[in-house]
Amino acid sequence: MVVNSPVVNIYPLSSYTFGTKEPKMEKDTSVADRLARMKVNYMKEGMRTSVEAILLVQEHNHPHILLLQIGNTFCKLPGGRLKPGENDVEGLKRKLSSKLAANLPSHQQNWQIGDCVAVWWRPNFETVMYPYCPPHITKPKECKKIFIVHLPDREYFAVPKNLKLLAVPLFELYDNVQRYGPVISTIPQQLSRLQFKMVDNA
Amino acid sequence: MVVNSPVVNIYPLSSYTFGTKEPKMEKDTSVADRLARMKVNYMKEGMRTSVEAILLVQEHNHPHILLLQIGNTFCKLPGGRLKPGENDVEGLKRKLSSKLAANLPSHQQNWQIGDCVAVWWRPNFETVMYPYCPPHITKPKECKKIFIVHLPDREYFAVPKNLKLLAVPLFELYDNVQRYGPVISTIPQQLSRLQFKMVDNA
Repeated sequence: MVVNSPVVNIYPLSSYTFGTKEPKMEKDTSVADRLARMKVNYMKEGMRTSVEAILLVQEHNHPHILLLQIGNTFCKLPGGRLKPGENDVEGLKRKLSSKLAANLPSHQQNWQIGDCVAVWWRPNFETVMYPYCPPHITKPKECKKIFIVHLPDREYFAVPKNLKLLAVPLFELYDNVQRYGPVISTIPQQLSRLQFKMVDNA
Repeated sequence: MVVNSPVVNIYPLSSYTFGTKEPKMEKDTSVADRLARMKVNYMKEGMRTSVEAILLVQEHNHPHILLLQIGNTFCKLPGGRLKPGENDVEGLKRKLSSKLAANLPSHQQNWQIGDCVAVWWRPNFETVMYPYCPPHITKPKECKKIFIVHLPDREYFAVPKNLKLLAVPLFELYDNVQRYGPVISTIPQQLSRLQFKMVDNA
């Protein structure tokens, strides 16, 4: 009955190299636009499923996660919305390649998608989400699933020019809902059951 | 690589019957006493490991967890401190029997200990804990591990007379750090990756 905590290897930030590629603009310019587009899509396709990735690196033996920063304040996990009928894992690989891989046919990134660590539900066309489907909500509008993605010991990432890729330590995320929001600020709790193995590439 | 979300069966609260037994008094009467005793034990035995249980029931198809209430406000998960060298699972079974089982030789509770869902660290002899071992802390004072415990479809619980056993819905715990503290109030996020199967005993 007991499942042992899975081990996750984490490599130093310096194992990875970062370049840039063409901008990936946000589809909406305001929260109101985003919720309106969500409503239109819901009418056509039903509940939205989105998938996001936790990519881990280490500095000073402490885990950091990679976040995409838009403008000066807003941070998000790499990922996005599935196409209707698309599989979680295939969709997340597609989104990660679109957000973080070089657009070179010679360079195929082989994303290793691991465990789902959290699931969030959006009951209404509003910004608030919950880590359960609230009672009496029979038609949630979005289900967001967050997966661990296991990085290889070396990799090249190409970051869209309008975004910044940040490595943020768990101690900065923890208890910091003001800066990172409810989903990202509780990632440290969701990862706490895992055993991190800090690997040095030196 | 992908591990499917484990399924957890949850039975209605009405499947369980509750009686009382002799009081189980707290060993300390104040937080200061508790931290002082922790320090004395640390000198003798090293880092404390404690284990706690999430016991799930359902009402109106929404998951609830069982909490022990001491006095009028303080709530805790059933569990406690391991003996030096004691195994997590055996120690948690011992603590659950001491806190919640009838003291009848004819009635042996067979606790089914499931996944570890969270691990918290206490860096100093203080109340604050973190869901990671903070950088530069080489000698943490306590490690607390929280496990899912799978309840059978029927059971009898004997609750110490000085405690109350409450079934608290996830929506009451969520974002309620003021009432339940940082460990218990983020249980909804830690459970969100699980698939709950609501079973009706009717």
